Amino acid sequence: MATPFETTVEVRFGDCDPAGIVYFPRLYHYCHVAFEDAWRLALGMPYPDLVARDRIGYPTVNVETDFLHPLRYGDVATLRVMVTAVGRTSVMFRFEARVGDRPVFRSTHTTVCLDLDTFEKRPISDAHRAAFARIAE
Amino acid sequence: MATPFETTVEVRFGDCDPAGIVYFPRLYHYCHVAFEDAWRLALGMPYPDLVARDRIGYPTVNVETDFLHPLRYGDVATLRVMVTAVGRTSVMFRFEARVGDRPVFRSTHTTVCLDLDTFEKRPISDAHRAAFARIAE
Amino acid sequence: MATPFETTVEVRFGDCDPAGIVYFPRLYHYCHVAFEDAWRLALGMPYPDLVARDRIGYPTVNVETDFLHPLRYGDVATLRVMVTAVGRTSVMFRFEARVGDRPVFRSTHTTVCLDLDTFEKRPISDAHRAAFARIAE
Amino acid sequence: MATPFETTVEVRFGDCDPAGIVYFPRLYHYCHVAFEDAWRLALGMPYPDLVARDRIGYPTVNVETDFLHPLRYGDVATLRVMVTAVGRTSVMFRFEARVGDRPVFRSTHTTVCLDLDTFEKRPISDAHRAAFARIAE
Repeated sequence: MATPFETTVEVRFGDCDPAGIVYFPRLYHYCHVAFEDAWRLALGMPYPDLVARDRIGYPTVNVETDFLHPLRYGDVATLRVMVTAVGRTSVMFRFEARVGDRPVFRSTHTTVCLDLDTFEKRPISDAHRAAFARIAE
Repeated sequence: MATPFETTVEVRFGDCDPAGIVYFPRLYHYCHVAFEDAWRLALGMPYPDLVARDRIGYPTVNVETDFLHPLRYGDVATLRVMVTAVGRTSVMFRFEARVGDRPVFRSTHTTVCLDLDTFEKRPISDAHRAAFARIAE
Repeated sequence: MATPFETTVEVRFGDCDPAGIVYFPRLYHYCHVAFEDAWRLALGMPYPDLVARDRIGYPTVNVETDFLHPLRYGDVATLRVMVTAVGRTSVMFRFEARVGDRPVFRSTHTTVCLDLDTFEKRPISDAHRAAFARIAE
Repeated sequence: MATPFETTVEVRFGDCDPAGIVYFPRLYHYCHVAFEDAWRLALGMPYPDLVARDRIGYPTVNVETDFLHPLRYGDVATLRVMVTAVGRTSVMFRFEARVGDRPVFRSTHTTVCLDLDTFEKRPISDAHRAAFARIAE
């Protein structure tokens, strides 16, 4: 049974800009933090092991985001992570952030399985496919 | 006559991740740097004045990006900035980055004109409209 | 009885540089995260309330740091925070980071109590003094 | 004849915090940018070549900084870079930042020559020594 993964991110002083809200590039760092938490806690494969030991990464090649409400200093956001599609070499992640009941952003990221030594695309392994299925939408 | 605005961004050591390429959230910072350069150099209105004096900002509410090639440490990217649409309260910016002749990413950002004191949307002023026309696609 | 405050910081992909270790400016962000955690959890005064409601901040005016071992992607660092001196308008924080038993850095930051509207120094209040005493070295 | 190296850094929106000034960890990124500019423009050895081709880096092991005045959004800082001491495996850099005539910070960074494959210290080469002499204090 697939279950979306959820983690929390606390908005830090240094994440916010002079307008008092999170500088939007930083929200993509939050997504990457949630992505790393999902690999470790839901997929059972710490991303540091992928990068350092397996020399595999999933860099982002396409992004579509709706920013619905600003995040402010002190907010604690819940980020939900789901896998919405898996191709031969690509996998699509969906991130949904909220503070309490209020949605703050939704973002869909297409990533590709990459050999970090050759920078060539690789077919996604069965082990990774099985892992992605755990957080399929 | 509208002319796209171009500026250059140098990839710095701290912008790159353990895979040796620019961490993708950082590419949105590059877009914001190019956006700030466009305000100052092409639109003739320094963004620091908007924020501090006029208390107006143009936060990003929607993003669509294709990352085509990774940027590596030492690359110098040319960023082209164009305004592709202007509504009553929103304006759409298009960013195209290349290194030499090789395109590296394309990103479209919808921003809204915001009163930074009340966080309410504001109609875009005629002065801003005239400025945006200078870099219209 | 004074007790040093401890919190943990997980090294994230985007914190690391092409050498595969945490980019050293990012280590100061880790200190600020620990500083914010200390305000909320040990001093009982969330820093967001200081900034937004009381309009008081404690910016850093002097730093002395020894970086002993690099932090790598995937490391989880324990940061210990102590107050080592309190003056009329200044307070000195000491940060000690370790991974397991291995010390990774030690840093002493002198901060000053600042009115965030006037940017003038302010005498440290009795409430803040009492709070700092809880994590005095 | 030794000459201090100078470069300029423009304060960007995303560098500033909710207090409207540059978040202090970011000032160390400015130092690293100036350090990279010094390698390329004054020492004649682009740091990307050191890292990628020679597999040598100069990570920072000790920092001492005085922050004298805050930097604000829109400021353009001049950073002066000097080498103040060279040992067998270590080299000390001094950074002095000002806006116009007003000094904003002074920072001394001890770095060590490191083999990026083994993470062992290396004796500084004669070529590097000769280069450092160009910006000796």
